[in-house]
Amino acid sequence: MGLIVQKYGGSSVATSERLRHVASRVAATRRGGSNVVVVVSAPGHMTDELIARAREISSRPPARELDMLMAVGEQISIALLSMAVQEMGEQAISLTGGQVRIVTDGVHTKARILDVDRRRIDAELAQGRIVIVAGFQGVTPEDEITTLGRGGSDVTAVALASALGADQCEIYTDVPGVFTADPRIEPNARQLARLSYDEMLEMASSGAVVLQARSVEYAKAYRVRMHVRSTWSDAPGTLVEEASDVEPIRTVTGVTHDVDVARVTIADVPDIPGIAHRIFSALADRHINVDMIVRAASRGGKADISFTVTRADAPVAEETTRGIALEVGGGEVVAVEGVAKVSVVGAGMATNPGVAAKVFGALAAAGVNIQMISTSEIKISCVVSAEEIQNAVRALHSAFDLEGVR
Amino acid sequence: MGLIVQKYGGSSVATSERLRHVASRVAATRRGGSNVVVVVSAPGHMTDELIARAREISSRPPARELDMLMAVGEQISIALLSMAVQEMGEQAISLTGGQVRIVTDGVHTKARILDVDRRRIDAELAQGRIVIVAGFQGVTPEDEITTLGRGGSDVTAVALASALGADQCEIYTDVPGVFTADPRIEPNARQLARLSYDEMLEMASSGAVVLQARSVEYAKAYRVRMHVRSTWSDAPGTLVEEASDVEPIRTVTGVTHDVDVARVTIADVPDIPGIAHRIFSALADRHINVDMIVRAASRGGKADISFTVTRADAPVAEETTRGIALEVGGGEVVAVEGVAKVSVVGAGMATNPGVAAKVFGALAAAGVNIQMISTSEIKISCVVSAEEIQNAVRALHSAFDLEGVR
Repeated sequence: MGLIVQKYGGSSVATSERLRHVASRVAATRRGGSNVVVVVSAPGHMTDELIARAREISSRPPARELDMLMAVGEQISIALLSMAVQEMGEQAISLTGGQVRIVTDGVHTKARILDVDRRRIDAELAQGRIVIVAGFQGVTPEDEITTLGRGGSDVTAVALASALGADQCEIYTDVPGVFTADPRIEPNARQLARLSYDEMLEMASSGAVVLQARSVEYAKAYRVRMHVRSTWSDAPGTLVEEASDVEPIRTVTGVTHDVDVARVTIADVPDIPGIAHRIFSALADRHINVDMIVRAASRGGKADISFTVTRADAPVAEETTRGIALEVGGGEVVAVEGVAKVSVVGAGMATNPGVAAKVFGALAAAGVNIQMISTSEIKISCVVSAEEIQNAVRALHSAFDLEGVR
Repeated sequence: MGLIVQKYGGSSVATSERLRHVASRVAATRRGGSNVVVVVSAPGHMTDELIARAREISSRPPARELDMLMAVGEQISIALLSMAVQEMGEQAISLTGGQVRIVTDGVHTKARILDVDRRRIDAELAQGRIVIVAGFQGVTPEDEITTLGRGGSDVTAVALASALGADQCEIYTDVPGVFTADPRIEPNARQLARLSYDEMLEMASSGAVVLQARSVEYAKAYRVRMHVRSTWSDAPGTLVEEASDVEPIRTVTGVTHDVDVARVTIADVPDIPGIAHRIFSALADRHINVDMIVRAASRGGKADISFTVTRADAPVAEETTRGIALEVGGGEVVAVEGVAKVSVVGAGMATNPGVAAKVFGALAAAGVNIQMISTSEIKISCVVSAEEIQNAVRALHSAFDLEGVR
């Protein structure tokens, strides 16, 4: 008997009606002859509401207690979904991350999975039950409750699919799959049938919200093929898998954008070894993820360093950076929030030298000024004014003929 | 260093403002030089809301999943209270029932505590932390989440006070203590300074909602003195303790009432041994608590049997009883919901033979018809029409001069 892992996002379980719809899908999968393990997120905006509640109490809620609080969202979802599935005549049981023993490190609110114990799930499946697991959460070896950060439920699904040797890992969302660009911004965007882990990683880290980069990293490391599908239709979605399975290799797969970007610039940093290390290890110590980093060529022994972070991290990043600028004799530190990032992603880009020039040309023709540039093997990202982001996405989508991509 | 266990009910933690007030009480107790273990209920009406949500999904939600669902309420309270206490500069840590290892049997939604492991709490107290424990919940030895039923958070507090050898067990509520009658019904009701476990047990089981009988039973068994106090004032509350400590013994301590009562009557039950056993063991199998039982004297080899249950249990009780009436050749089964129970409680009653007569006389003088009567060592209860309950409480309060009790 095969095993399918299905993950349903928060909006899929936000109301009793939706929950029943999800339950019917789960029950139908079971009746189709497979064992089923379901991973669920917290209902709707519950996690955000709980965080808001915490902030009423404390301006900086302790991360350990925030995890204690946030973990309830998924616990509500699994209990209700188990009831809904049982109401349809199937046997089911809900399990928290702690009950499964999804063991994580102790970095609260951003924990990493260390180990998944498959024994409890195996025992429940052997009883003929559908097993419904709380996403987003785990426990440390000392039994402390942790959460996995944004996109954590996808990580849970991939980790379970890997640990259980599942045949499929289906990620159900509100959208039908992964698109060449955000269809709300670019009406000509097309759904992709498949793409590689690396392409999905670059798209996710550059603004495609359908999957979070961490789950894709996990899927790549453990060779779990992810199938992104809509909760609300039976249409095939988008497969995320090994590059070798994705043929032919496209030069450009999609255009992504991200408006949750703030730029921090430190002027006139002395051009001596170790300065960048000090800045970015100080930020890492505060668990701030830095995205793009650009260091201008030095003039007179000094150079500007710019980097981007999420808007939520900007105040702490600015304060941290300012402290270091004082220590090392750097100049002014400025954080700017009215920026956004547009990226072009494609596995074939590495062997196609003209892509960068084409990107800059298309943006120039559209009158979009580029503030920062960063490139990887398969991605070119530009920071632009937030007001120009729609303009920029459309110009690039059109320049690379993505209306015709499949 | 002494140890105080404090329990705060749901309305005490229903809003951020109230939560801060509770946090300030907890912090003040710690600053007073004691170790503090706090037990908290779910905020406000959350448990009821969660149950309502479950009933949207399932007409009879599986008890195991209901426990999974309900346990989140207390988890929210402990996380927020821990944040609030830490915001006031004290060290604190929240712990679920599972993290403490409050081990229960597996009777979901009505579990009983089998064992409390004090090691985790001791370790946290030794670190100088205030320990905030989720009330109402536990885990089975197999790590299944259970809840303790109504008043379960009080049970948790008493169990922890006992396991930890606490100096005090304070139960904070919305009212200042235990009264001779419900002050909303009888404006002349007086607060009691102290009463015995047995009196409190009888009052709780006959309608005094300030404490649930289960927690008092637990307190009596483990010799834990409970101090019922108001969250909102520093006034002394009511002590519930050994009878020998309560002097002098009063004939009547209070008048209680309960409107959550339904009466089920089976007519013409054959007067043969074992019939009552069949009826009430069938009800027990369905976890229905039967309160009063009255069997009329038999006429012609047949007798009526009446009993009371909560209104929520009435439909199942009626159905169960009807099935057995059919099997044993009994007559009609009727469930009546428009009834209520009034009780007179007092430890000195056992040695004062005139009390019952005085009860019946007072009710008769007030024009209240008595439908059922049941007596214990220290209590006399009468089922009356629900419409007459206020009238009945006042008549009895006045007849026993309870305005003057202290």
